[in-house]
Amino acid sequence: MMVKVGINGYGTVGKRVADAVSQQDDMEVVGVAKRSPTYEAEMAVEKGYPFYASSDKYLDGFEEKEIPVEGMLEDLLEKAEIIIDGTPKKAGYKPMYEKAGVKAIWQGGEDHELTGLSFNSMANYDEAYGADYVRVVSCNTTGLLRTLYPLHRDVGIDNCKAVMVRRGADPWDTSRGPINSINPVLDIPSHHGPDVQSVVPDINIQTTAVKVPTTIMHLHSNIVELEEKMDTEEIIDIWDKTPRVRFFNASQGVDSTAKVMEFAKDRDNPRGDLNEIAVWDDAIKVEGSTLYYYQAIHQESDIVPENIDAIRAMTELEDDSMKSIQRTNEAMGIE
Amino acid sequence: MMVKVGINGYGTVGKRVADAVSQQDDMEVVGVAKRSPTYEAEMAVEKGYPFYASSDKYLDGFEEKEIPVEGMLEDLLEKAEIIIDGTPKKAGYKPMYEKAGVKAIWQGGEDHELTGLSFNSMANYDEAYGADYVRVVSCNTTGLLRTLYPLHRDVGIDNCKAVMVRRGADPWDTSRGPINSINPVLDIPSHHGPDVQSVVPDINIQTTAVKVPTTIMHLHSNIVELEEKMDTEEIIDIWDKTPRVRFFNASQGVDSTAKVMEFAKDRDNPRGDLNEIAVWDDAIKVEGSTLYYYQAIHQESDIVPENIDAIRAMTELEDDSMKSIQRTNEAMGIE
Amino acid sequence: MMVKVGINGYGTVGKRVADAVSQQDDMEVVGVAKRSPTYEAEMAVEKGYPFYASSDKYLDGFEEKEIPVEGMLEDLLEKAEIIIDGTPKKAGYKPMYEKAGVKAIWQGGEDHELTGLSFNSMANYDEAYGADYVRVVSCNTTGLLRTLYPLHRDVGIDNCKAVMVRRGADPWDTSRGPINSINPVLDIPSHHGPDVQSVVPDINIQTTAVKVPTTIMHLHSNIVELEEKMDTEEIIDIWDKTPRVRFFNASQGVDSTAKVMEFAKDRDNPRGDLNEIAVWDDAIKVEGSTLYYYQAIHQESDIVPENIDAIRAMTELEDDSMKSIQRTNEAMGIE
Amino acid sequence: MMVKVGINGYGTVGKRVADAVSQQDDMEVVGVAKRSPTYEAEMAVEKGYPFYASSDKYLDGFEEKEIPVEGMLEDLLEKAEIIIDGTPKKAGYKPMYEKAGVKAIWQGGEDHELTGLSFNSMANYDEAYGADYVRVVSCNTTGLLRTLYPLHRDVGIDNCKAVMVRRGADPWDTSRGPINSINPVLDIPSHHGPDVQSVVPDINIQTTAVKVPTTIMHLHSNIVELEEKMDTEEIIDIWDKTPRVRFFNASQGVDSTAKVMEFAKDRDNPRGDLNEIAVWDDAIKVEGSTLYYYQAIHQESDIVPENIDAIRAMTELEDDSMKSIQRTNEAMGIE
Repeated sequence: MMVKVGINGYGTVGKRVADAVSQQDDMEVVGVAKRSPTYEAEMAVEKGYPFYASSDKYLDGFEEKEIPVEGMLEDLLEKAEIIIDGTPKKAGYKPMYEKAGVKAIWQGGEDHELTGLSFNSMANYDEAYGADYVRVVSCNTTGLLRTLYPLHRDVGIDNCKAVMVRRGADPWDTSRGPINSINPVLDIPSHHGPDVQSVVPDINIQTTAVKVPTTIMHLHSNIVELEEKMDTEEIIDIWDKTPRVRFFNASQGVDSTAKVMEFAKDRDNPRGDLNEIAVWDDAIKVEGSTLYYYQAIHQESDIVPENIDAIRAMTELEDDSMKSIQRTNEAMGIE
Repeated sequence: MMVKVGINGYGTVGKRVADAVSQQDDMEVVGVAKRSPTYEAEMAVEKGYPFYASSDKYLDGFEEKEIPVEGMLEDLLEKAEIIIDGTPKKAGYKPMYEKAGVKAIWQGGEDHELTGLSFNSMANYDEAYGADYVRVVSCNTTGLLRTLYPLHRDVGIDNCKAVMVRRGADPWDTSRGPINSINPVLDIPSHHGPDVQSVVPDINIQTTAVKVPTTIMHLHSNIVELEEKMDTEEIIDIWDKTPRVRFFNASQGVDSTAKVMEFAKDRDNPRGDLNEIAVWDDAIKVEGSTLYYYQAIHQESDIVPENIDAIRAMTELEDDSMKSIQRTNEAMGIE
Repeated sequence: MMVKVGINGYGTVGKRVADAVSQQDDMEVVGVAKRSPTYEAEMAVEKGYPFYASSDKYLDGFEEKEIPVEGMLEDLLEKAEIIIDGTPKKAGYKPMYEKAGVKAIWQGGEDHELTGLSFNSMANYDEAYGADYVRVVSCNTTGLLRTLYPLHRDVGIDNCKAVMVRRGADPWDTSRGPINSINPVLDIPSHHGPDVQSVVPDINIQTTAVKVPTTIMHLHSNIVELEEKMDTEEIIDIWDKTPRVRFFNASQGVDSTAKVMEFAKDRDNPRGDLNEIAVWDDAIKVEGSTLYYYQAIHQESDIVPENIDAIRAMTELEDDSMKSIQRTNEAMGIE
Repeated sequence: MMVKVGINGYGTVGKRVADAVSQQDDMEVVGVAKRSPTYEAEMAVEKGYPFYASSDKYLDGFEEKEIPVEGMLEDLLEKAEIIIDGTPKKAGYKPMYEKAGVKAIWQGGEDHELTGLSFNSMANYDEAYGADYVRVVSCNTTGLLRTLYPLHRDVGIDNCKAVMVRRGADPWDTSRGPINSINPVLDIPSHHGPDVQSVVPDINIQTTAVKVPTTIMHLHSNIVELEEKMDTEEIIDIWDKTPRVRFFNASQGVDSTAKVMEFAKDRDNPRGDLNEIAVWDDAIKVEGSTLYYYQAIHQESDIVPENIDAIRAMTELEDDSMKSIQRTNEAMGIE
């Protein structure tokens, strides 16, 4: 029996999760809902996803572009067991989902309070088992958890200070800046630390953040005080065994976020995405119990496999987190 | 007798025109009006401009920051003979000015219809003589008129095709993009051609425009079919005699908009502005009667001296355009 | 019998052409040669391309990274019938190819004189039939020919003025700028016009060019004086029948180069490439016999199918240009 | 008696220090030396600086542009008591200065070992008193010392972790990138920590650095473990008394490096420079003994007043650091 997944919002997250669901053999896309008749709507249809309108405002537009509409969002909610909500933050669809009795997964733009359950595949899969409403944390928080959680579990973290150097806009978003400025987030520590703690409350982390004029990847410069002295090889060893963390280094010619993205394109990843967190292994440095490292986050795609695992946990397809992670990874071509 | 000038809107245009008015010996700033208590408000006071609030929304803020407020915008309108309107486009202050019986100058963001009189110092000073309401055309249109009008007058233009490569945002505007894209203006020909014609109806010009990720200067690539064959030296000669056009070339090390701006800073121009239009004389090329050239436009400041000349024309301080231009230029340090 | 293709230089062009050759059923990659042991070398091996070293300088590096080296470039030249030269411009390998008696294709960075034969699939396929040495023209020139050649053939071009708004660096190239400037090419008309004429001498075209801070796509703003009056629909009709030209428009949500690239990613194009020239059909405008339009060029990939067609012509696999174009397109998934 | 200062290298640093020297009443510019006849050479002459050629390669060029050359660099060394070396790093002029018996100041691009004495006005003015050769540390190191030294002196620093978000190129430098990438400095900790220690060896500091696509200002996100608990007001109080540190905050509308630069332009600072370090006082946060703050560094100008103070110390014009700092600041208009 395949789990029936509906996608509400067919943008950056929605279109990626739809494709990832289609790659799994225990779930299927029963429909995607979208507001307006852009080329993405046409592509959804070309890909064979049943198409639903999430608003009646643009129905004429769909007709004009000959995009066959199967029904309204309400109809999709009837068919789906679980909804991936990829709509803009605070769009407020929860009452509709409750009314339809459908499970739902939101993304990191929402507050923790919406679901009371914030999710990362490795850190708290069990908590999501059977849950109705789950929030997959943001790309940055997912990135922090991917590298910090195994340290927390295997070594112990006294504290972590992380500086998030954030991209100003997504590649397709041509209205937002800055074009030539660094914008610090003046409310410090930034919200990323508490967001990590919404998943694993006992990781002691404080963060600051700046926005810079790039569209590809966030980069974190992290300093971790570990609970014990380690050497660099031991840290590399931990992350080497950690899923969804990938090493890069300058000797390969990969010394920037741009070259990480080039690597992902060359690897024929769909859309040139990188679902893994990029860590430069030649820039991991441990002095005593102090660990320094950089990691880069593909803001559009690192959370996609977490959405798949969340579906599996919530619908009780699989009760072992590592088995779900492995299954998701294999289906998606993540090493 | 000094003409009493009020400034409504103390942003990019307003603060520059205020300083330029102060440099003249036949006009004075009797007050500037602003909405909110930013550092620009503090600086206006430091510079000695009587300060007025254009909204009662932020009066507490002014008090908190100890910015002395002389009165409301209405009070300023009582004192001024002429208002420079530097407020955001379509802000809609005209009825207030009419009621107060004060003359007013708007900027190029407004439609021609607001005043029925669009202005460029060299091209139609006489039309503005004694006028009540004038619109100084935009930075790009001003730039086009600076180089095209003398060709139209001295040689005759059969037609001009201009491509405007526009900056995405002003240097201080950190919210607007694009960060990594070229955005064509799809509605072609773009509005810049008709805007030139709002000043000189018989210049035959069509334009297209693209937006690019830079904050400093627009650049135009222009091709002009002249009414007769010319050689490059003759064109250089015409522009050499034209005020507010400045030549640059690669042999000086000035081969980009960035280096033009560096030149302006090095010349100790206030705010690093360039009131002149930059033309690369090593890239002026005439083949038969076809003229190719590039020009760069400092979007924040080229229209400042035109505002001064417009004041002089409208208040009948001077009836000869070239005398006003020369007087403005000398006071502002424009060669 | 499969034509044996060698790739010398496995960078932006080389890696793409290698993959495109592999997609064809009448040619095969017998080896790729590269200088240094970057991740691209590892990927070439992973993709199953026999790997050759083009210099003995880094042989230790290949050994260290366990990249199996089949031989030196000279050995590859023995095995191949035709070489795709994707090395940096003026790298000077021609004597080696001559000595080995192998045919060769260079890219647009080289001078026309190197081969005496500059190539575009639609415009002069026949000239390359059986030729030993061919130069595929640059991305920009290819783009101009894709849209201009059919107009030249079907309508007649009196003259074309094109402004090339060029990307400053490729996406992976993090050392080159500008970051915040527009750099005009001061030597005008720019070399792009004569380069078009190296393929079709009787297209009358003059170009100018500026470099801007973006990494994705060049954009051309073109004005064509046609030999007869046309209407917009007729032009659209011509290009609609032209291979490797694709229409976009704002009503699809595609109003910038960034969104064209997003479209290409969403279409699952390898590396997110766009082999076609993007033309905005909502910004094609004809006034009398004057045609205005914008086109965008994916600098890394538009020349890839032309390389394939050039192989087919030079090795006499196919004597009909349109059949080769169709065969290449079908194999590469170009509509 | 005025100290006779020569400037070798009239670029970013040289032209600014020349102007700052001219503003002082105890020193004068006896000449500037430059290699090539760019507009900066013309401006040096316009400003009245005796002009010397530092190479005979471009003498014809100076003649062609009618730039009067007083002599060669060697001649300038005869006239000057002290040289400001603003030439590209590792240019290697020290033997010439030694031979001429002239004192010299280098900039932060040089190694500490060149002089054995690295300088910051507040931290080690006394060490430079009477010295022959001094290196003024780089813009970033100067910025770190401006805020850290007073904490070290008044409170005690247990350790500081600083992340340097660096501009990719100077505003005029249109050849360097990145355009769309974040480039981490993979050799960590970065050299900035040891460079701070070249001035004050007992400040315990480790740094990392990333390069981003902006031309205006570096930004540091710093975390300091103090030797005792403090509150935010106490920290603000210390920096409020510290020269060359200026507070900004969002309530003034200054929430980015771009707006800091706009402030500097509005303040009529020469070239729009900001000689002070910008600290956002609304983003200073102390939790226990942990201090978080951001600071922004105008890379082209923060070291200018340090050069002036270094001249005064080395030539024994003034033996009290705070008196020199105050004198420099007053002459330069630094509050």
